[in-house]
Amino acid sequence: MRLYHMQESGNCYKVRLAAHQLGQPLDLVDIDFVGGETRKAPFLALNPNGRTPLLQLDDGRCLPESNAILFYLAEGTPLLPADRYTRAQALQWMFFEQYSHEPYIAVARWWWSFTPGGRETKKDRFPEWREKGNAALKVMDQHLAEHDFFAGRYSIADIALYAYTHVAHEGDFDLSPYRALKSWLARVASEPRHIPITER
Amino acid sequence: MRLYHMQESGNCYKVRLAAHQLGQPLDLVDIDFVGGETRKAPFLALNPNGRTPLLQLDDGRCLPESNAILFYLAEGTPLLPADRYTRAQALQWMFFEQYSHEPYIAVARWWWSFTPGGRETKKDRFPEWREKGNAALKVMDQHLAEHDFFAGRYSIADIALYAYTHVAHEGDFDLSPYRALKSWLARVASEPRHIPITER
Repeated sequence: MRLYHMQESGNCYKVRLAAHQLGQPLDLVDIDFVGGETRKAPFLALNPNGRTPLLQLDDGRCLPESNAILFYLAEGTPLLPADRYTRAQALQWMFFEQYSHEPYIAVARWWWSFTPGGRETKKDRFPEWREKGNAALKVMDQHLAEHDFFAGRYSIADIALYAYTHVAHEGDFDLSPYRALKSWLARVASEPRHIPITER
Repeated sequence: MRLYHMQESGNCYKVRLAAHQLGQPLDLVDIDFVGGETRKAPFLALNPNGRTPLLQLDDGRCLPESNAILFYLAEGTPLLPADRYTRAQALQWMFFEQYSHEPYIAVARWWWSFTPGGRETKKDRFPEWREKGNAALKVMDQHLAEHDFFAGRYSIADIALYAYTHVAHEGDFDLSPYRALKSWLARVASEPRHIPITER
């Protein structure tokens, strides 16, 4: 399988991490987002929505959306809960991640640490990102005060939420108030075959 | 099963529509979002993220996130594709809906048609919502020019995307340029046991 990805993207890291833990080799193709490659014809022919990550199967079929890729890779493995309700819980947290977490925590990180001048350009948006991102972290912390993971055992729900949470400080988020969340970050990082976001 | 819902919410409509088509009765509990009910202790005890829809199973367990609820209800039925890749495609479009569609089209509708003074209060945000909402509609229209539905046959992916697309005009979106999308709206509305958003 081939993965069109960006090294620094948490959404792309999710897929690299899950694939590594599942022993699924990936042929990595670097995409130059800053140079506009996701908006040019060759990439749009593969993903009309113009986003990474994009998984391409060996027969050429494509699958975008990080959390849909996680689900696809994890089917039939211990990374997807076998029980119907717990499986739906995993998806619940993955939809939470894309709706209530990523748009604030990942976006703030992008403008704070990866875009020259971004702290100034987006200074009117940071208060909202900070408020809503912290609301998401608080919801996670509450859950983790009573559970080791998000959906039963370690699963793709944890991978989805770990990706941008563990680098939230790069968006100027302070994780120190979230004690249960910090313990969970350490638990996820100690899972077998864990790799950091910097590893290919 | 019990559904905590708001009648006018597209996210809640998704669940009512799928449940009706599956012959799954729901005990509906109206939630007063405008009155702040989703932010008060009794509701937060059920869903710490403070959002509707929320499904409560007969044994009391809760499941939030509209698209996770759709997946839960549809497992083992024709509304969830049986093939692994097609099932991942359904999820792909459901994540697309929550990330690239709903935050612009549903949010614009809320402020345009359901919030007194909202057109003025949010006038600085409408241009971005309009641009990104139309980008999502264009991606859908491109797909539908070559496919009848989003993931093989009619599925929960169509239900997820239909919910806010068919009322996009209430957010001042003009659907007339999207011919394939408009035909799909009519196809979805002609599915057996379809119900409108106004029906309980």
